[in-house]
Amino acid sequence: MFFKQFVVEGMGCLSYLIGCPQRKVACVVDPKRDVQDYIATARKNGMRIAHVFETHIHADHVSGNRELQSRTGAEICFMEGTPAKFEHREVKEGDVMDLGSVRLQFIKTPGHTPHLMSILVTDRNRSDEPWFVLTGDCLFVGDVGRPDLAGDELLEEQVRNLYQSLHEKLGKLPDSMEVFPAHGEGSLCGKGMSSKPSSTIGFEKKTNPVLSLGWEEFHREFTSGFPERPKSFSHIIATNVEGPPLLERCPVARDLTPRQVKMEMERGAVVLDARDSAAFGGVHIPGSINIGLANQTANWVGMVIDPQAEIILVVYDEKDYEAMCAQLHRIGYDNVIGYLAGGIASWQEMGFPLGRLRQLSVEELREGLERGGYDYIFDVRTSAEYSVGHIKGIEHLPLTRLLEEPPKIPKGKEVIVICGSGYRGNIAASFLQGIGLHRVYSLAGGMKAWVAAGYPVAKD
Amino acid sequence: MFFKQFVVEGMGCLSYLIGCPQRKVACVVDPKRDVQDYIATARKNGMRIAHVFETHIHADHVSGNRELQSRTGAEICFMEGTPAKFEHREVKEGDVMDLGSVRLQFIKTPGHTPHLMSILVTDRNRSDEPWFVLTGDCLFVGDVGRPDLAGDELLEEQVRNLYQSLHEKLGKLPDSMEVFPAHGEGSLCGKGMSSKPSSTIGFEKKTNPVLSLGWEEFHREFTSGFPERPKSFSHIIATNVEGPPLLERCPVARDLTPRQVKMEMERGAVVLDARDSAAFGGVHIPGSINIGLANQTANWVGMVIDPQAEIILVVYDEKDYEAMCAQLHRIGYDNVIGYLAGGIASWQEMGFPLGRLRQLSVEELREGLERGGYDYIFDVRTSAEYSVGHIKGIEHLPLTRLLEEPPKIPKGKEVIVICGSGYRGNIAASFLQGIGLHRVYSLAGGMKAWVAAGYPVAKD
Amino acid sequence: MFFKQFVVEGMGCLSYLIGCPQRKVACVVDPKRDVQDYIATARKNGMRIAHVFETHIHADHVSGNRELQSRTGAEICFMEGTPAKFEHREVKEGDVMDLGSVRLQFIKTPGHTPHLMSILVTDRNRSDEPWFVLTGDCLFVGDVGRPDLAGDELLEEQVRNLYQSLHEKLGKLPDSMEVFPAHGEGSLCGKGMSSKPSSTIGFEKKTNPVLSLGWEEFHREFTSGFPERPKSFSHIIATNVEGPPLLERCPVARDLTPRQVKMEMERGAVVLDARDSAAFGGVHIPGSINIGLANQTANWVGMVIDPQAEIILVVYDEKDYEAMCAQLHRIGYDNVIGYLAGGIASWQEMGFPLGRLRQLSVEELREGLERGGYDYIFDVRTSAEYSVGHIKGIEHLPLTRLLEEPPKIPKGKEVIVICGSGYRGNIAASFLQGIGLHRVYSLAGGMKAWVAAGYPVAKD
Amino acid sequence: MFFKQFVVEGMGCLSYLIGCPQRKVACVVDPKRDVQDYIATARKNGMRIAHVFETHIHADHVSGNRELQSRTGAEICFMEGTPAKFEHREVKEGDVMDLGSVRLQFIKTPGHTPHLMSILVTDRNRSDEPWFVLTGDCLFVGDVGRPDLAGDELLEEQVRNLYQSLHEKLGKLPDSMEVFPAHGEGSLCGKGMSSKPSSTIGFEKKTNPVLSLGWEEFHREFTSGFPERPKSFSHIIATNVEGPPLLERCPVARDLTPRQVKMEMERGAVVLDARDSAAFGGVHIPGSINIGLANQTANWVGMVIDPQAEIILVVYDEKDYEAMCAQLHRIGYDNVIGYLAGGIASWQEMGFPLGRLRQLSVEELREGLERGGYDYIFDVRTSAEYSVGHIKGIEHLPLTRLLEEPPKIPKGKEVIVICGSGYRGNIAASFLQGIGLHRVYSLAGGMKAWVAAGYPVAKD
Repeated sequence: MFFKQFVVEGMGCLSYLIGCPQRKVACVVDPKRDVQDYIATARKNGMRIAHVFETHIHADHVSGNRELQSRTGAEICFMEGTPAKFEHREVKEGDVMDLGSVRLQFIKTPGHTPHLMSILVTDRNRSDEPWFVLTGDCLFVGDVGRPDLAGDELLEEQVRNLYQSLHEKLGKLPDSMEVFPAHGEGSLCGKGMSSKPSSTIGFEKKTNPVLSLGWEEFHREFTSGFPERPKSFSHIIATNVEGPPLLERCPVARDLTPRQVKMEMERGAVVLDARDSAAFGGVHIPGSINIGLANQTANWVGMVIDPQAEIILVVYDEKDYEAMCAQLHRIGYDNVIGYLAGGIASWQEMGFPLGRLRQLSVEELREGLERGGYDYIFDVRTSAEYSVGHIKGIEHLPLTRLLEEPPKIPKGKEVIVICGSGYRGNIAASFLQGIGLHRVYSLAGGMKAWVAAGYPVAKD
Repeated sequence: MFFKQFVVEGMGCLSYLIGCPQRKVACVVDPKRDVQDYIATARKNGMRIAHVFETHIHADHVSGNRELQSRTGAEICFMEGTPAKFEHREVKEGDVMDLGSVRLQFIKTPGHTPHLMSILVTDRNRSDEPWFVLTGDCLFVGDVGRPDLAGDELLEEQVRNLYQSLHEKLGKLPDSMEVFPAHGEGSLCGKGMSSKPSSTIGFEKKTNPVLSLGWEEFHREFTSGFPERPKSFSHIIATNVEGPPLLERCPVARDLTPRQVKMEMERGAVVLDARDSAAFGGVHIPGSINIGLANQTANWVGMVIDPQAEIILVVYDEKDYEAMCAQLHRIGYDNVIGYLAGGIASWQEMGFPLGRLRQLSVEELREGLERGGYDYIFDVRTSAEYSVGHIKGIEHLPLTRLLEEPPKIPKGKEVIVICGSGYRGNIAASFLQGIGLHRVYSLAGGMKAWVAAGYPVAKD
Repeated sequence: MFFKQFVVEGMGCLSYLIGCPQRKVACVVDPKRDVQDYIATARKNGMRIAHVFETHIHADHVSGNRELQSRTGAEICFMEGTPAKFEHREVKEGDVMDLGSVRLQFIKTPGHTPHLMSILVTDRNRSDEPWFVLTGDCLFVGDVGRPDLAGDELLEEQVRNLYQSLHEKLGKLPDSMEVFPAHGEGSLCGKGMSSKPSSTIGFEKKTNPVLSLGWEEFHREFTSGFPERPKSFSHIIATNVEGPPLLERCPVARDLTPRQVKMEMERGAVVLDARDSAAFGGVHIPGSINIGLANQTANWVGMVIDPQAEIILVVYDEKDYEAMCAQLHRIGYDNVIGYLAGGIASWQEMGFPLGRLRQLSVEELREGLERGGYDYIFDVRTSAEYSVGHIKGIEHLPLTRLLEEPPKIPKGKEVIVICGSGYRGNIAASFLQGIGLHRVYSLAGGMKAWVAAGYPVAKD
Repeated sequence: MFFKQFVVEGMGCLSYLIGCPQRKVACVVDPKRDVQDYIATARKNGMRIAHVFETHIHADHVSGNRELQSRTGAEICFMEGTPAKFEHREVKEGDVMDLGSVRLQFIKTPGHTPHLMSILVTDRNRSDEPWFVLTGDCLFVGDVGRPDLAGDELLEEQVRNLYQSLHEKLGKLPDSMEVFPAHGEGSLCGKGMSSKPSSTIGFEKKTNPVLSLGWEEFHREFTSGFPERPKSFSHIIATNVEGPPLLERCPVARDLTPRQVKMEMERGAVVLDARDSAAFGGVHIPGSINIGLANQTANWVGMVIDPQAEIILVVYDEKDYEAMCAQLHRIGYDNVIGYLAGGIASWQEMGFPLGRLRQLSVEELREGLERGGYDYIFDVRTSAEYSVGHIKGIEHLPLTRLLEEPPKIPKGKEVIVICGSGYRGNIAASFLQGIGLHRVYSLAGGMKAWVAAGYPVAKD
């Protein structure tokens, strides 16, 4: 089981990413609105966020439920009856849901809000018994959720519910069970919470001052003397009930799974692989074009890719994604629809077909030429570069011409592409692979390597 | 004169920020689409970008003209006749425009496009003679702008224009004049350009191979054998003619001048000063509220500021702006309309009225108390904090209550506010200043400082 | 009480910052060597780090004790008898130390090492009873600390101590007490630890398989069949005993040209290629070892590379260089002499020989198997992974064994290496290339890809 | 030819990376001490830095020559006779050196120092004639290098040399030749330099006021009335002559508690408060000097603080700490012993005495003047600024003079300090506070604010 608590310091909001790395599936409980760290952590551990669970409608922070949904497609779940006005799934008291080896059980623990739920979590790899409980805003470390936020009319009922939830529901759980609440120190949903963000049922029973109150004291305590209620709470509740608006960003770095990339390619999207030539040579998505992230990238994209095309990027990391988008924006290629989440490794792990592009060393090329050569060899540099020095007998076909009028080559023939340093060679070779040629190779290091190795150069 | 060349490596796009720091005004010539660095550089040097000059409609990169306009309000200018379909100002051959000590003169130098202009720039602090010339895509370092992009029909005319622009216009300028073109190495708008991005008229006359061609050779050279024209060029030209779409981002870090902040305040915007208490104490915008960027910021904003309010931030830098926005988003305060560009210094330099909030030392407070005290002293901490220990005889008025029911205090009375560490004291004191009290002070370091100094503490 | 757990992902090192913000004092338990985050967190919460507690001399990571001391003046504390050769304070069984409201009690729980201690922690603001226990390397979540690292002579005694510590000491604590160990998933100080980094005494008693063993079974289990012991462990123990050297601006990011790398390799330097498997597959320096920059990197380096070796890195960029150095420092591999400036491209452009490592797709492997198979195929995963499911008929050879006793394979034979996702496959394959085998291939995506593609899996 | 100018804003240090990408070789001329950007730029363009040329021994910034050498192995070169006491190569008048297609010619142009050289640079791909000249500290854009720094004994000779270098050497170069000096605006090696960092021989001949002086006027001008010479210059010259020490992880960001800061101040450490004027005005450590982190910081530190002093910084955050250290390293102030951990808030919370510096608004100043004025008012700007416009009747006392010969003012008198924008006003005012004056105020926004508010300005 993967388990990670996220703490928003100051506001004291606690949220949880829980999942099963074997099954590559995860959920987030009570997400904050800035959701990037959930996504990054899930991705780093090879999981997809498939569910968002809200223990209740929050009053103190706008939820990230819809933000997560728009980025990952996750389903949003509330306890039955929760008045959320946007699409969601309801779970019921006692429902059980399995995410791989992780088992979630939902129990109603109202009091702070009328439909608040706690979630029992079992790691079935370790035991069939629940390991810990997410208590939402019912039981905190050192306090309990305030029952007054729902308003005066409901107060009496909420107080009764809260008492029952604490004593009849959570109080019946084993002493050894860990407790992970939705708030810690700093939160205005309770008071006197500890800054230590976890505890156990047993320890809270012994030390939490609220749990030792009898019903009458409890009732007195919670029907008088409410703590402060910020102006923002009504606004936040309304926002969370209606569905929080998305924090739009352009470009949204939309994560695409390998399967989604495949589907988009079938619909016509172009896959632009911005990794370097060595990496593209090792493994790539068949049909992708290699234009490495470098100084001249935008110029080459402008030559190879149609301005109207929908583009998917293969990059090393998000920083490179943004650098590529900046370059594409400069030439008005704004149709980037996302990138392959998890990089090329995620493609490999799906067992999908792999492309490779052999990066020939100059030594191998020389030996090959001596052995009698290849079916086709093209030097794709500019005329100026070619005239300064080239390998004797090699045909000159500038990259721009090759792209516009691809040479007609029977499938199965062996093709070598040579450029200045290997960069354009990979553009050309990936383009030739894309039109169906399979035995294409690129000269690693290009003419720079040939010259550096001291091999002979012809001039016009 | 302020002068800075910006280089987009690889694409070889060169653009310029030129301005007069004394008069705080600047212009950008041929901006790229990612405009943040122009804005940051102008701001750092105390200038506002008031104009964008385009030497022509670019074919190789989408312009940042509208992006700059939306961020700074700059006016966009083209040479007369340029077919830009969005709002802009036209300048004419021979027009002169002064930005403080910087003088710009516009000269038509068509050939690459039919309405291309060059700009002569004079630093009137140094001389009345032009110092250098921005040559757009007419004269490059080592090459000239290609005349074929406008299409076959115009080619003959463009070639003639280009020859004339080079020999009759630019060629007549003094040899000692520096040349700053719109493109350098890597650009596809010419070929064989140097990677050194400046030259002089004299050096180009001597060494630029195109300039030594007679008309007939020149004509032959440019009516045959065009270099490559990427797929993207038609798309880019169309985009630049229609007006480049904005790269939307939320939040747009909108820079507000002190004057704009003033106007927005008059319209009801709330100024939230997120600097620390010492800085707010030193100088602030009168009427602003101080809630320092810290762990608990969002909670306090939720107490003090109305969820519907339009908010302007005063922060140290853009990083803090983004951190504040993230906190505000968490509680659904999405109405941030911008921030004071240049920070509090820019407000000071306008000669606008200044607020200050005296940060009292504990020593001063003790002496003041011994001398007979102040008109009002409030300890604004929570009941729990107050009961643990307070200064004897000081009234307890929790911050939340103070904000909801501000005490009625006659103007002119002296008010001291005390909290735990000085943070909430500043919230309270800035709030009291905002409702018209002038002699308000905050205890620096709060009760922490009082205790640390070893002064006596009373308990309930 | 302030409490924060720090997780070094991959190595599974857990450390703790615990303190009393009221009294502004804190301690760190079992610090890692990169200590900036402890200091920053303490400072942000207004605390000074005054003590460092080591539960024992670590074998898997170099301690940050002296680094913290030099930055903050903290005192370093060990359990009485610990053979640390640098200045420190000794605590004794039963000693109690108060940091403001935080109470620490030290209890001897030997077994993993002869002087290991656990620490009971009480938040006196909440209760006078201990809240939780830091169990060091005695009790883990789902496992216990291995007793064999101290060597064969001590084994019998260590095993007896461990049993007693678990049952007589920790086992006597209340079921409701939370457990925070010094290691979690990824650590080599135990096996089968959960990735959830906390538990309770009660839950471990119920579910931890080791705790249910009687003495005889326990004895049998721990006196036979030890897990792997990386080369690095003796080096790390020695470093921690002597006192870890301070990280004095170590290393300077020295740029090495391809020629310098070649020379250093001839002098014995090891080239560690930290790029991903696809990139290494495409092109690499012949003789280099591929251990991709990932969570577990440090553990694998500790297995493959000699602690005394001079190391040269091949990385994508300077950020990765620094991340790798941080990982290497954690295990005391401080001999990084530089990195290949300009990345693998600079090697290619010199025309030097190129290594490649074919990344086989699962489809190709299946076809190959159907066509009659390969000379050698090794599944290099652990026994646990292998037993869950493998390709029928494939030989099991755990990576650690392969590295220690490389199989004798005649040159020219075709070897396929299979692991979980391709990562360890590349370690093994690059190692086999390094000892002279040329026809080595790695299964891209490993068994994950095989399973995802729906190919048949055999179980034991 | 690759050519890039590097600008250290504020100090106005200009340096150059020049190289031949085809031959992969480059040199740096007059490197600053933080050399990473040279290395990164060279590497990105495929070049190795093989030479460092120093036009002369610098007085205003510590050179990065040895830092570059240790990182890249580059050879350090000076003009024959330069008294550098560490290993270097000497070049001679007229020597020619080729780096691939780049040709360098060295010419002696003494006057600022006795062995200063200029460097003619030719791009042999474009022409055999030199394209531009690096003029070191001989000819600046709008000024020339001051001849007085070498001391009184050499002055007569230096002035003669300078005149000859300007007229006989540089003045004989073609008008069309570009000029790239070693300093621009902000430098103290000249005065009135333009912020535009390049020019041409022809334009300077026409407009540079010094070049139009005949020998006698020239002689008079340069043998009287020297500009300010910061305390730091002798230290920097000595450092550059001996060979600048390497920046060995210097400084460690040592956190100092308020108590430690106090103790170090008692032992003589100088507290340099690098926050902005508003924050310093609000609260500061009594006795600290306010030199805000900005462009010109290093220059001002060099004026105010002794090069041998141990320095403690007060900054907003660690980023600012590092930026300040970088600036201090540039002028060889390596004795930074740490910074106030937790910022000014931590000082406040100790209950220690507080300094404040009232930031007067222009409105308050005007009212004060109308009410009869203050005991002392000083305008601390330069003569040039003062003469352009000042407040009628206000005494002119340039900051440099004020620092060297502080005015004798009886304690208890009220002092107002006025500068251009408030920055230098705070330097002066904090200095005056430091020598025991208590009623010192600084004009917020300085003359900029006064002018912006539309108040009357007198001219000489």
